Amino acid sequence: MKVAVVGATGYGSAELIRILHRHPYADLTQLISSSTAGGELKEVFPHLSHLSQPLEVWDGEALAEEVEAVFFAAPAGISSRLAPPLAERGVRVIDLAGDFRLEGEEYRKWYGAEPPAHPWLERAVYGLSEWSAPAIRQAELIANPGCYPTATLLALLPLLQAGSIADGPVTVDAKSGISGAGRGLKRTSLFAEVNENMFPYQVGVHRHTPEIEGHAARIGGRETQVIFIPQIVPMSRGILVTLYAPAAAGWTGARVTEMVKEVYREAPFVRVRDQGAWPRTKDVQGSNFCDIGFHVDERTGMLVGMAAIDNLVKGAAGQAVQNLNLRMGWPETAGLDLLPQYP
Amino acid sequence: MKVAVVGATGYGSAELIRILHRHPYADLTQLISSSTAGGELKEVFPHLSHLSQPLEVWDGEALAEEVEAVFFAAPAGISSRLAPPLAERGVRVIDLAGDFRLEGEEYRKWYGAEPPAHPWLERAVYGLSEWSAPAIRQAELIANPGCYPTATLLALLPLLQAGSIADGPVTVDAKSGISGAGRGLKRTSLFAEVNENMFPYQVGVHRHTPEIEGHAARIGGRETQVIFIPQIVPMSRGILVTLYAPAAAGWTGARVTEMVKEVYREAPFVRVRDQGAWPRTKDVQGSNFCDIGFHVDERTGMLVGMAAIDNLVKGAAGQAVQNLNLRMGWPETAGLDLLPQYP
Amino acid sequence: MKVAVVGATGYGSAELIRILHRHPYADLTQLISSSTAGGELKEVFPHLSHLSQPLEVWDGEALAEEVEAVFFAAPAGISSRLAPPLAERGVRVIDLAGDFRLEGEEYRKWYGAEPPAHPWLERAVYGLSEWSAPAIRQAELIANPGCYPTATLLALLPLLQAGSIADGPVTVDAKSGISGAGRGLKRTSLFAEVNENMFPYQVGVHRHTPEIEGHAARIGGRETQVIFIPQIVPMSRGILVTLYAPAAAGWTGARVTEMVKEVYREAPFVRVRDQGAWPRTKDVQGSNFCDIGFHVDERTGMLVGMAAIDNLVKGAAGQAVQNLNLRMGWPETAGLDLLPQYP
Amino acid sequence: MKVAVVGATGYGSAELIRILHRHPYADLTQLISSSTAGGELKEVFPHLSHLSQPLEVWDGEALAEEVEAVFFAAPAGISSRLAPPLAERGVRVIDLAGDFRLEGEEYRKWYGAEPPAHPWLERAVYGLSEWSAPAIRQAELIANPGCYPTATLLALLPLLQAGSIADGPVTVDAKSGISGAGRGLKRTSLFAEVNENMFPYQVGVHRHTPEIEGHAARIGGRETQVIFIPQIVPMSRGILVTLYAPAAAGWTGARVTEMVKEVYREAPFVRVRDQGAWPRTKDVQGSNFCDIGFHVDERTGMLVGMAAIDNLVKGAAGQAVQNLNLRMGWPETAGLDLLPQYP
Repeated sequence: MKVAVVGATGYGSAELIRILHRHPYADLTQLISSSTAGGELKEVFPHLSHLSQPLEVWDGEALAEEVEAVFFAAPAGISSRLAPPLAERGVRVIDLAGDFRLEGEEYRKWYGAEPPAHPWLERAVYGLSEWSAPAIRQAELIANPGCYPTATLLALLPLLQAGSIADGPVTVDAKSGISGAGRGLKRTSLFAEVNENMFPYQVGVHRHTPEIEGHAARIGGRETQVIFIPQIVPMSRGILVTLYAPAAAGWTGARVTEMVKEVYREAPFVRVRDQGAWPRTKDVQGSNFCDIGFHVDERTGMLVGMAAIDNLVKGAAGQAVQNLNLRMGWPETAGLDLLPQYP
Repeated sequence: MKVAVVGATGYGSAELIRILHRHPYADLTQLISSSTAGGELKEVFPHLSHLSQPLEVWDGEALAEEVEAVFFAAPAGISSRLAPPLAERGVRVIDLAGDFRLEGEEYRKWYGAEPPAHPWLERAVYGLSEWSAPAIRQAELIANPGCYPTATLLALLPLLQAGSIADGPVTVDAKSGISGAGRGLKRTSLFAEVNENMFPYQVGVHRHTPEIEGHAARIGGRETQVIFIPQIVPMSRGILVTLYAPAAAGWTGARVTEMVKEVYREAPFVRVRDQGAWPRTKDVQGSNFCDIGFHVDERTGMLVGMAAIDNLVKGAAGQAVQNLNLRMGWPETAGLDLLPQYP
Repeated sequence: MKVAVVGATGYGSAELIRILHRHPYADLTQLISSSTAGGELKEVFPHLSHLSQPLEVWDGEALAEEVEAVFFAAPAGISSRLAPPLAERGVRVIDLAGDFRLEGEEYRKWYGAEPPAHPWLERAVYGLSEWSAPAIRQAELIANPGCYPTATLLALLPLLQAGSIADGPVTVDAKSGISGAGRGLKRTSLFAEVNENMFPYQVGVHRHTPEIEGHAARIGGRETQVIFIPQIVPMSRGILVTLYAPAAAGWTGARVTEMVKEVYREAPFVRVRDQGAWPRTKDVQGSNFCDIGFHVDERTGMLVGMAAIDNLVKGAAGQAVQNLNLRMGWPETAGLDLLPQYP
Repeated sequence: MKVAVVGATGYGSAELIRILHRHPYADLTQLISSSTAGGELKEVFPHLSHLSQPLEVWDGEALAEEVEAVFFAAPAGISSRLAPPLAERGVRVIDLAGDFRLEGEEYRKWYGAEPPAHPWLERAVYGLSEWSAPAIRQAELIANPGCYPTATLLALLPLLQAGSIADGPVTVDAKSGISGAGRGLKRTSLFAEVNENMFPYQVGVHRHTPEIEGHAARIGGRETQVIFIPQIVPMSRGILVTLYAPAAAGWTGARVTEMVKEVYREAPFVRVRDQGAWPRTKDVQGSNFCDIGFHVDERTGMLVGMAAIDNLVKGAAGQAVQNLNLRMGWPETAGLDLLPQYP
């Protein structure tokens, strides 16, 4: 099956190319990049110099003729405009940007812009693969989750569903490598500024906050407030999320771990760690795994959840392909049976 | 004034040497290292090859004759044995290990060993310079605070004292560079294991937990439970602590910031960040500064405190020298007027 | 076809597992590790926790019954003892250590030990895939090349063969990430020692020196002296080799580049860079590619060759699998069609 | 004595500020930055937030009135215009850019621009402190050496002078951390591009080539051709230069080392390493040291020189202050008695 990637020059796109390259059913035939159209992929990504792949200009009509699925890996605001016409013509769309992840009101508030027009915002399916598979299988347009929300929700949703945490705000302390900030030129992305540095950013205003809250409520079935503090650490890839909430009565670390193992018994990409063997980002590097673990602190009664993903794989391109697999009825792991690269 | 360092081959000791090298009043004349006695400093630290400094064996009698102050930078369990006899002879002792930081019962529980013998555990002064200066000025034996507790308490104590946070456990999410783990040979300290990796460790059992709780209560005047989760990030130096607690009524980020600025108005090493300009570890690298900042999230009512230090300076050797300065009546900044190294 | 790995706990072994996991014809059924036999793979490599794979003790008899090929990823000195009996029973052996790479006299001199016994040292085939494919296809025992020699020889051999460089010693300035030093506990492998550091090591005595010289002569057909200086740089993976020799008359950078492109026209894993687009280690990370490029400096008449590989892939596990593919008559790229991981 | 820095927002300038902050005789009173004039230093460098220092616009007249020395830390092309008028009025000028380092013809060829006007190019003194102290003491305008030439020449000049190497081109393989590329926004300076990466750049065209050659000839007294290949490694600070040339008859590593030790016997910032203890960049980090070492390879007859500096200190700001010290007749080490920061 032929597929295309729109916005072909970022890191998420490089990962889509890497994964689709070995996909048994999907064939990446078109790379669309308005900014560099007319050029070749290898000018943008010398690591792919052995591939002869032109970067093409956007032509929605032609695209709808030629491919059956399109990944949008473009900045916010592009897919809300370009994706609906494709979806209307039956092309499966998977959007890696945030355009279709929030409800209209929340979008306006956190993005400071108009959300995608009716009815596509409503018809888009939030593609958290492990939790929305039935809807994803029918979806016309899939809103691929953000990197932080993926890690956070995979740890948080079982707790909400099982009632393992008491009411009240959940604290989400999140740390990410810098590739999540993209390939754009910013002083805060320079090597000499990031190396040997750690710092919080977008404190209280990060757009992944309402994404976590919204889908925690929708999927987890419980209104949940989240205080979300993202922090940059000096690595290229990897997210570690540590979440904190008061444990509900009767929940020990072992019991939570057992419960969550049961929840993900059939999930090929979620590995639940035993007590004492906590998630590490290097254990998932380059792979679609999400490693999670749980501790209940007896002294304080706090439940601590930890989740590690590769932000560019399970947090972006990997989950996007997983969603395509679900959508097409292919094996969920097709093209994604990558072991982590270690070290 | 002549001073000595006991345990001269670790990273904390390298920092003591670096700082004392330019100290106007203290003269580092003796380096004691049982494991490498008979050798020379440059064999352990080639970066100091231009200094001709022998590493000597421990001789408490001789030491008490020759120097007026001794820094213990040895592993836990050494100073509890060796320091009291020195202190009894009037030598000022500053202990960078944890031996004298906890009360006896807590020590037994968290260290799994017998605490230092009566009466020196009681007579030791916890050397959080900004909060215990009067006691430090009289101290016979100073227990230099741990790296995590230093960063945590400098942000937390003003909140406790001013009543800016509601009752209940405080969440302390802490991230550290690997030098805090020392120079010993462990697989988890290897470059290829730490690089491009982040991971929690000693979840629920880290010895800095009771240190934070104990001194939060003693200095802050309020019993406080702490859930403390330390995490390693791929850098050599630097600690970033992010703490979370429900804000008490009426406290905005701006008000907290003003209050804390007032608390530290005279403190030469604490820089309180304005709203939106959050602490970064690189801003304090190589210096004795602790940068702190505060956010109150209006949606959730949570107060977020952030603190950044260089774990080897303000978190170890720098604060130790600051304490010596206080003890001797020298200017607090003597030898410590180091600007951060950037980048 | 069933294969085994002996020495299963190092980084090279982790890469063998990663690559063989997706190999279409080889099935990794046995992991031998004397030091941790009785344990499970996931205790050594938590990143593979979803695999249930026991670590077994060495039993040459049983092994020869059960598998058709064995990779030795053990330290020097193991395979010289254990591999010959396997090879004698018809098991294909690929040795990633240095035991079978040198002639006896050279081995004695550089390893300070006795070389493998007659006749297996002579019967071993040096597995530089691109240059020895015919011999590899018949080999009983393949000596997989070292990481530095792989990068160096792939750039150097075409120059020797074509006569592009004048007589005289070739300067090989080599830089490597630390994973090449293995997973053993050494102070010089600690994160805090390697990070923000660069340093030469084993100056003049590195065992890859005679390996490069020997095979430059044997394959390249010209006695060549090499001054080889290895240096550690702060990265986990990656080797960059820069070699220098006076250009022979008439050779420009463009002409050398054209010539080398022709040499490797059919080689799926060697990418020859155009003038001005030099090899970078990140462009080959996680893949079996070797990127090479050439500059002839008109002012000085010096020819500069540059080669980049991932030391654990093309420099170890990847080339080992490439050699197995050649040996078995499978497509050379089987299991190795991995795009580089970027960034 | 009052001094000023022109071009106050780069990394070299941050180091000048750090060093001058503790200088016993020089007082940094003015920071000139055209691009950010009207702002404050802390907006550009939050690590200096406790200093209240305005960034001022260039006013040559006023400057000449107020200060006695000016450091130019601006991009190429600024000082050639602004420095001569200051120097004419008796202000000591130290230029950290390349404007005054080459002869006119070479400047035209390598910079592709007109060199500074007569007679200041001729009157400028090349400030390699250890080799030109007498001229520096009289200089009106000091051209502070480039980072690569500093490391290279300190190792190379004794060899040329003593005749330890044979005629013919010298190979200079140089590796640098990314701070040498400045704080400007370039894709090749992004963390995710530099981390886990090594790559050559400006192969054959780097402007430090003629700087090395020119001053090797002028100071070393022997025309010397240099093939110079710079390479980026993933670190913030540090340069390691490895140079190669055929040894002249009779020179062993030990003899070269002794000879060079004698050359630098009185030099406070050059540390000559013994055989087997090679220079490492971490050993000089944050300090003004240059560590050098020498190996003569008996097999090949090649002499290998290795030199490590912190590119921002001995390679820029530190040597600039060293030159000011020489110029003013102050102790050469004033303000520069900084021990390396380790780790």
